[in-house]
Amino acid sequence: MSRPVTLCTSQWADLPLETVCKKAQSFGYDGLELACWGDHFEVDKADETYCRKKKETLSKYGLKVFAISNHLVGQAVCDLIDQRHKSILPAYVWGDGDPEGVRQRAANEMIRTAEAAKRLGVDVVNGFTGSSIWHLNYSFPPVTPAMIKDGYSDFAARWLPIMEKYRALNIRFALEVHPTEIAFDITSTRRALEAINNHPNFGFNFDPSHLGYQGVDYVKFIYTFAEKIFHVHMKDVSWSNVPVETGVFGGHSEFGSLERFWDFKSLGHGNINFEEIIRALNRIKYNGPLSVEWEDSGMDREFGAKEACEFVRKVDFPSSNIAFDAAFEK
Amino acid sequence: MSRPVTLCTSQWADLPLETVCKKAQSFGYDGLELACWGDHFEVDKADETYCRKKKETLSKYGLKVFAISNHLVGQAVCDLIDQRHKSILPAYVWGDGDPEGVRQRAANEMIRTAEAAKRLGVDVVNGFTGSSIWHLNYSFPPVTPAMIKDGYSDFAARWLPIMEKYRALNIRFALEVHPTEIAFDITSTRRALEAINNHPNFGFNFDPSHLGYQGVDYVKFIYTFAEKIFHVHMKDVSWSNVPVETGVFGGHSEFGSLERFWDFKSLGHGNINFEEIIRALNRIKYNGPLSVEWEDSGMDREFGAKEACEFVRKVDFPSSNIAFDAAFEK
Amino acid sequence: MSRPVTLCTSQWADLPLETVCKKAQSFGYDGLELACWGDHFEVDKADETYCRKKKETLSKYGLKVFAISNHLVGQAVCDLIDQRHKSILPAYVWGDGDPEGVRQRAANEMIRTAEAAKRLGVDVVNGFTGSSIWHLNYSFPPVTPAMIKDGYSDFAARWLPIMEKYRALNIRFALEVHPTEIAFDITSTRRALEAINNHPNFGFNFDPSHLGYQGVDYVKFIYTFAEKIFHVHMKDVSWSNVPVETGVFGGHSEFGSLERFWDFKSLGHGNINFEEIIRALNRIKYNGPLSVEWEDSGMDREFGAKEACEFVRKVDFPSSNIAFDAAFEK
Amino acid sequence: MSRPVTLCTSQWADLPLETVCKKAQSFGYDGLELACWGDHFEVDKADETYCRKKKETLSKYGLKVFAISNHLVGQAVCDLIDQRHKSILPAYVWGDGDPEGVRQRAANEMIRTAEAAKRLGVDVVNGFTGSSIWHLNYSFPPVTPAMIKDGYSDFAARWLPIMEKYRALNIRFALEVHPTEIAFDITSTRRALEAINNHPNFGFNFDPSHLGYQGVDYVKFIYTFAEKIFHVHMKDVSWSNVPVETGVFGGHSEFGSLERFWDFKSLGHGNINFEEIIRALNRIKYNGPLSVEWEDSGMDREFGAKEACEFVRKVDFPSSNIAFDAAFEK
Amino acid sequence: MSRPVTLCTSQWADLPLETVCKKAQSFGYDGLELACWGDHFEVDKADETYCRKKKETLSKYGLKVFAISNHLVGQAVCDLIDQRHKSILPAYVWGDGDPEGVRQRAANEMIRTAEAAKRLGVDVVNGFTGSSIWHLNYSFPPVTPAMIKDGYSDFAARWLPIMEKYRALNIRFALEVHPTEIAFDITSTRRALEAINNHPNFGFNFDPSHLGYQGVDYVKFIYTFAEKIFHVHMKDVSWSNVPVETGVFGGHSEFGSLERFWDFKSLGHGNINFEEIIRALNRIKYNGPLSVEWEDSGMDREFGAKEACEFVRKVDFPSSNIAFDAAFEK
Amino acid sequence: MSRPVTLCTSQWADLPLETVCKKAQSFGYDGLELACWGDHFEVDKADETYCRKKKETLSKYGLKVFAISNHLVGQAVCDLIDQRHKSILPAYVWGDGDPEGVRQRAANEMIRTAEAAKRLGVDVVNGFTGSSIWHLNYSFPPVTPAMIKDGYSDFAARWLPIMEKYRALNIRFALEVHPTEIAFDITSTRRALEAINNHPNFGFNFDPSHLGYQGVDYVKFIYTFAEKIFHVHMKDVSWSNVPVETGVFGGHSEFGSLERFWDFKSLGHGNINFEEIIRALNRIKYNGPLSVEWEDSGMDREFGAKEACEFVRKVDFPSSNIAFDAAFEK
Repeated sequence: MSRPVTLCTSQWADLPLETVCKKAQSFGYDGLELACWGDHFEVDKADETYCRKKKETLSKYGLKVFAISNHLVGQAVCDLIDQRHKSILPAYVWGDGDPEGVRQRAANEMIRTAEAAKRLGVDVVNGFTGSSIWHLNYSFPPVTPAMIKDGYSDFAARWLPIMEKYRALNIRFALEVHPTEIAFDITSTRRALEAINNHPNFGFNFDPSHLGYQGVDYVKFIYTFAEKIFHVHMKDVSWSNVPVETGVFGGHSEFGSLERFWDFKSLGHGNINFEEIIRALNRIKYNGPLSVEWEDSGMDREFGAKEACEFVRKVDFPSSNIAFDAAFEK
Repeated sequence: MSRPVTLCTSQWADLPLETVCKKAQSFGYDGLELACWGDHFEVDKADETYCRKKKETLSKYGLKVFAISNHLVGQAVCDLIDQRHKSILPAYVWGDGDPEGVRQRAANEMIRTAEAAKRLGVDVVNGFTGSSIWHLNYSFPPVTPAMIKDGYSDFAARWLPIMEKYRALNIRFALEVHPTEIAFDITSTRRALEAINNHPNFGFNFDPSHLGYQGVDYVKFIYTFAEKIFHVHMKDVSWSNVPVETGVFGGHSEFGSLERFWDFKSLGHGNINFEEIIRALNRIKYNGPLSVEWEDSGMDREFGAKEACEFVRKVDFPSSNIAFDAAFEK
Repeated sequence: MSRPVTLCTSQWADLPLETVCKKAQSFGYDGLELACWGDHFEVDKADETYCRKKKETLSKYGLKVFAISNHLVGQAVCDLIDQRHKSILPAYVWGDGDPEGVRQRAANEMIRTAEAAKRLGVDVVNGFTGSSIWHLNYSFPPVTPAMIKDGYSDFAARWLPIMEKYRALNIRFALEVHPTEIAFDITSTRRALEAINNHPNFGFNFDPSHLGYQGVDYVKFIYTFAEKIFHVHMKDVSWSNVPVETGVFGGHSEFGSLERFWDFKSLGHGNINFEEIIRALNRIKYNGPLSVEWEDSGMDREFGAKEACEFVRKVDFPSSNIAFDAAFEK
Repeated sequence: MSRPVTLCTSQWADLPLETVCKKAQSFGYDGLELACWGDHFEVDKADETYCRKKKETLSKYGLKVFAISNHLVGQAVCDLIDQRHKSILPAYVWGDGDPEGVRQRAANEMIRTAEAAKRLGVDVVNGFTGSSIWHLNYSFPPVTPAMIKDGYSDFAARWLPIMEKYRALNIRFALEVHPTEIAFDITSTRRALEAINNHPNFGFNFDPSHLGYQGVDYVKFIYTFAEKIFHVHMKDVSWSNVPVETGVFGGHSEFGSLERFWDFKSLGHGNINFEEIIRALNRIKYNGPLSVEWEDSGMDREFGAKEACEFVRKVDFPSSNIAFDAAFEK
Repeated sequence: MSRPVTLCTSQWADLPLETVCKKAQSFGYDGLELACWGDHFEVDKADETYCRKKKETLSKYGLKVFAISNHLVGQAVCDLIDQRHKSILPAYVWGDGDPEGVRQRAANEMIRTAEAAKRLGVDVVNGFTGSSIWHLNYSFPPVTPAMIKDGYSDFAARWLPIMEKYRALNIRFALEVHPTEIAFDITSTRRALEAINNHPNFGFNFDPSHLGYQGVDYVKFIYTFAEKIFHVHMKDVSWSNVPVETGVFGGHSEFGSLERFWDFKSLGHGNINFEEIIRALNRIKYNGPLSVEWEDSGMDREFGAKEACEFVRKVDFPSSNIAFDAAFEK
Repeated sequence: MSRPVTLCTSQWADLPLETVCKKAQSFGYDGLELACWGDHFEVDKADETYCRKKKETLSKYGLKVFAISNHLVGQAVCDLIDQRHKSILPAYVWGDGDPEGVRQRAANEMIRTAEAAKRLGVDVVNGFTGSSIWHLNYSFPPVTPAMIKDGYSDFAARWLPIMEKYRALNIRFALEVHPTEIAFDITSTRRALEAINNHPNFGFNFDPSHLGYQGVDYVKFIYTFAEKIFHVHMKDVSWSNVPVETGVFGGHSEFGSLERFWDFKSLGHGNINFEEIIRALNRIKYNGPLSVEWEDSGMDREFGAKEACEFVRKVDFPSSNIAFDAAFEK
């Protein structure tokens, strides 16, 4: 059987959930990955009744939910807090904006997110971790090994207690490996796992779009962290095969501007090799949803979301369930 | 005539200048680009006598000087100051470490550097500018256009007064376009020039090694900013043509570790196309030195510096000084 | 909304227009780009009645017309006339075949074409210009700058008066940039625009198939001449990525022969990157038709024209009409 | 033994021969390929005495001569004559400029060139043939097969009589396969050989620089016409691996301008794979000279000619003269 | 008209033929290529009645048969027989396993296969030949030319008599060029044809999947042996564009293991360029079936066989049946 | 310090050792890798006197010896013996040619080779192992896992006793990983090491030329088996980047024939990336010789051996012995 195809609602938070449901159904999706912003899934309101009603709304449009996402709050757990965070956090998490206070309220909110997930009946929370050392990624002025070590220790100190709660709730946290997080390529992911003692409830929301343009082997990521792939984002990205004006660091430019080295693209319009991803997911026996996180600054969102759903259905295929009989191969 | 080949002394600051001179001569160099650290060129001591003696030392080994470099102090002019800066600044610039104080003392020191350059008889000071917005290079949490604009305004506010002093002294400042600076690719360089009103004394120390692995068209850089190429670093870098474990952001790894997307390399051992660089420099009629900033974590420094000097002499060639007679081409 | 997809009738001039209409409808097209040969659109007969009847024929098959094409007559305006032109010109334009007479009658016919277009209700005439200097494209025996200059002056002298008439009629002329014309790549196009003083009624019928195999950046063409893209041909071409027996100049061989460096191909069967073309057309806000000029010496014409129509519908997509909300991208 | 390395004097015709000799010796060459223009080798003056003196001049500088070149006159034999030819022909060949007269005088001069070659003691005359159909290379307005056939017939009619004279003199004519000639790629070369009945005295001056950028397999050229490789030019050319502004047809631009698809380059600075050329020449047992036709609009001519001589010596190597003993390979 | 698409039943021999028919029909196939194993087509039982019933079974599901395949028995004709052959041969061919006896019974069975094909009404038998020299493919310990010659002589001695019978029956034998056979690339195929005197009944079942990963030009294969293409297998294969752990010789690993240089893939999931194959088949006017030999160790067989049928229908296209009118190309 | 450069004498066994010494000195080598054939190093004669005299001969020409090679005898230890082996074995090893007898005598001779090496004063014996399963590399007729397992067991059974003797003598055996051996890529090498219990005296003579054309990651080989790299062959190979007539299995063709997918080449004339090899050898701290095994069917042997020696000296470089001071990198 093919995997369910879901739509991640983060990029649709400007619309009420029911509108999103209606559209998602018409685009052909099997379900939604509910984002914890807008009215899509509000952690602070998510009691049993709220959760039941959300599921009813989805059911009405023939949709299921397999995971919820709380990237914005997760980001604040380890980050050096500044004004940018105010714009992405609920007021009750931001509070007075004192950095350490924000971080602690964010950590607490991530626990509440797991509790809400439990009530909703899903066992995966996708999200970000933030990082106290992302700004040190280019080692000038020279960064000492101790500074990096401190960053991973800080991550462990803040997330281990959260993960213990997740373990108690039997909920898995799936970090979307991504620039600005404690893990953003294979090397930093290894280190994050080490720091958190390979905690069983800590794993990944695999999203190739954040890895490919960096020059990271995203297929190897799947094999390397096979048992940690808790969720999968289908998202494409293009990068240039000739040198351009705006380099990989973005040149302080906007998405969609010309002469950028890389940009997010609707599925099938970028450089990601989804064939190899599906084969890898088949080999590691990932059975969860394929969730479309749609983003393309040059395409109509509704056109794209529909085309993307068709793309995923076409590119996904089941693996062989019988041993190939060597006697008859030639 | 071919251009003079100099050795940048930044990577040799662990040795006394005279030792560096002796080595540079034996490697075959024509001169040195003196770094303002170690005893190579000390701004605070650089009175007329000091400068005369430095030049005598160089002369003794048949070496000339065309430019001095003060990257470390320049970095502090715009940066958000933290403990890393303490390790790269003279004690009298660091002072009590109060960020704004550090920045202002650094700015003042850059002016003193120009005055010292004048006494030494060179008209180019290479260096860094620092940047208050480098940490915002990945736009998450979302960065607003106003935040970027503020960064460039801060740069202009701090460097325009410095540049006015340089104008008075007839000294040119050559920013090495580089990650962590206000300009690190073509797009951000355009914007920096705009911010500083295209100040005549503000230009660039072209160094392809910081651009190539980013996916930036370093040859186009030369044509785009032709009249702003005040100095040239010959430095190579390799980047992978297959995806690897550590992406372009460095994965918090050390230089020289395996599976890095990019690393600095001795000249001729990386991916930079120096043929096209020389053709471009010929076309824009750059006549200054070609300065080897040697760095390769996998090669013996002395072996490499000698090989690099030979490499530059081989790759540099004079352009045609007669019009090609079309009547005889076929 | 997606753009209308039309079929250029030049390659179907062996069939009566009504037959072409019937086929085009069955292939799925929205309209036709009428060629001024065969009975498709006869300039000399195109009075109001003729035009009304043509449109009725099209309507009968649900087709619209957005542009007409008169490449063959346009070619004769600047060309050095020889026997080849006799085979492509109406007898009344060829006349006695005296070169200057032919050129002047051709120029006049191009004006009459615009008048007929007006009566038909379209505002774009596609076509060729010819060139008195195409045969000098390889500079041996040596070609002087004055010879080239003369060619562009001749072009301006012949086409400026025509363009003035077009201006009066409010009709735009769209040159298909193409070998043998005054403009055949970006460089010669810049020069043609300069020669004709960037005349507002002079622009281009963008056709990537004539640029790609030459090594011309056809996407850059769109951005460089954004406001001059009056019409678009969808046509594909393949070129070899390994060296072959017949080079880019064609080796005096026929289309479709083996070992050619390049050949026209049905859409999607060649090397042209239509994804990038659509993104560029979206960015410059081109809203006209996408017209299939079908040509592939190795494929059945009807099979191909149908497949090509489907290809264009699949590759065309609308751009985003809302600003991408940076707050929610990750 | 390695092959002799000669310098083609065509690009040095602005200098008296003796000056060229002096330079060639200092650059390291073994000999010269004398061009029939300037005072290098004047066919109309080349009696026995003249020839002896020329050889003495060469000997004085330790140089030999293996071939002479008369491209300019050869070009006029088949060309459609226009003002460009006046600038490249001796006055006595141009005469009154009547095309047919020019062609016939040029044909006669090519015979006289062979006679002079005989007196000089060389058995190869390099040159061009011209072509009456080059201007038809792009088949629009449509070119009929008959027109092409006429061009090859014209070539045969004009050159067969010349070749008969060459046969009588035991001199071989080596056409440099090149745009604007009757043969410019493998396909047109096959056809030229057929037209001229594979005449034993008609062969080629192999020059990869005119083939590579066209997409022609220049190594295959050597194997295909193995017994017809009478002489070899070592000349390099670069072509772009990304699309540019000026396409392969040259955009009516000058050599050396930016954004050209291709340009001639000093040896080792372009894209030609000389390793494969040497292996092919070894396999076909070509023992003649490797003649440097130096051309690079971006490099000093004297620097380049010296570097090119060293390049040829480095790239040329002898083939195995013993059968490789299979018993010991592993 | 497009070509019929058939399914080769070799990979489905674990299922009764009627089951395969049912599935093939549901997948969209036009017919079957019957394998001579399982109950699909049993040579020893294939009398007139048997053949009529087989065809009735196929007809029941709307299927036709164009060829039968007997690779397993063919393999034994020239092979050095060992235990592996026992597992692939009918007991009555294996007999007592004495190598020469096996080879002779296999040769006889191939004749009986042709007789059965005749009764079934098809004129092509696909198969293997085996080879007595495949194990010598790497020339160490050194292989002498005589040893290779012996292998081809053995092939001729064994297969010429078989081919004579085929000639009498008017049946063509189509060797699937493949490792372990007497022909496995273009060079060995030429030699096999020579050895067998280019026998008119001996030709090929073209299958690109066995050629591409070897670095063999499979499109050139079609043109080189145009009149010998008796049957076509549509089968895909991928090979790595980066170096891996298991090389092209297979490293004694299983299909489907990671880090293999090559592996068979469902159509459209590998590296084979079917566009070029169809164009070549069109040019040589191959009108037979396109037979899907489905194999992909990472994909569900039924999903794949259906997708493959659709793929073939999409990639196949008819060639032009009218001469392209040059007068209207531009 | 750079590593010593030696010449492997296998390809010079047609010459007496002293002649080879004279040549090697003149080519610039530091030493020889003595082959156990011809008179270079005769195991059966190699008593103390013989060994002392050999070293005196080498010393006379300033040459050292670091390893001896006995590939030919080693090959016979596991191989299925046939007539080919007779031509490569000493008569006393071949004996009556009974396969099992040959294998046992070969095994014994490999022990005697180690004893002779000890007397000569070297601690590395390079060689081959042979393989009883090489002929099964393509799995048709289907090869069972048990058959492969048997091959590795046979290898272990035959080589473990030999290795025990080597351990006692403190001599290391360096298998040249190579087609026809028990290990020929990374996967089969892993398995061979497992089979032989990772015996401390069993390691490898790294030779990239046998791996690269197979698509094997030869640089990864070095890192994967870092502590097992006992010796290094510098040998180059080219492979085609376009498909050809003779595939990677060799098409039963000779080395040096045209249209082969791969062929051995003199150093620097093939595709091997020696830069990456040297960096890898530096990282694993390999300090042994770089031994040139020269082979190129298209180049004069003496020209090539000299050029190869210069190539190795140029490409080899020492690694950094000081930690790169991060404080000064930028």
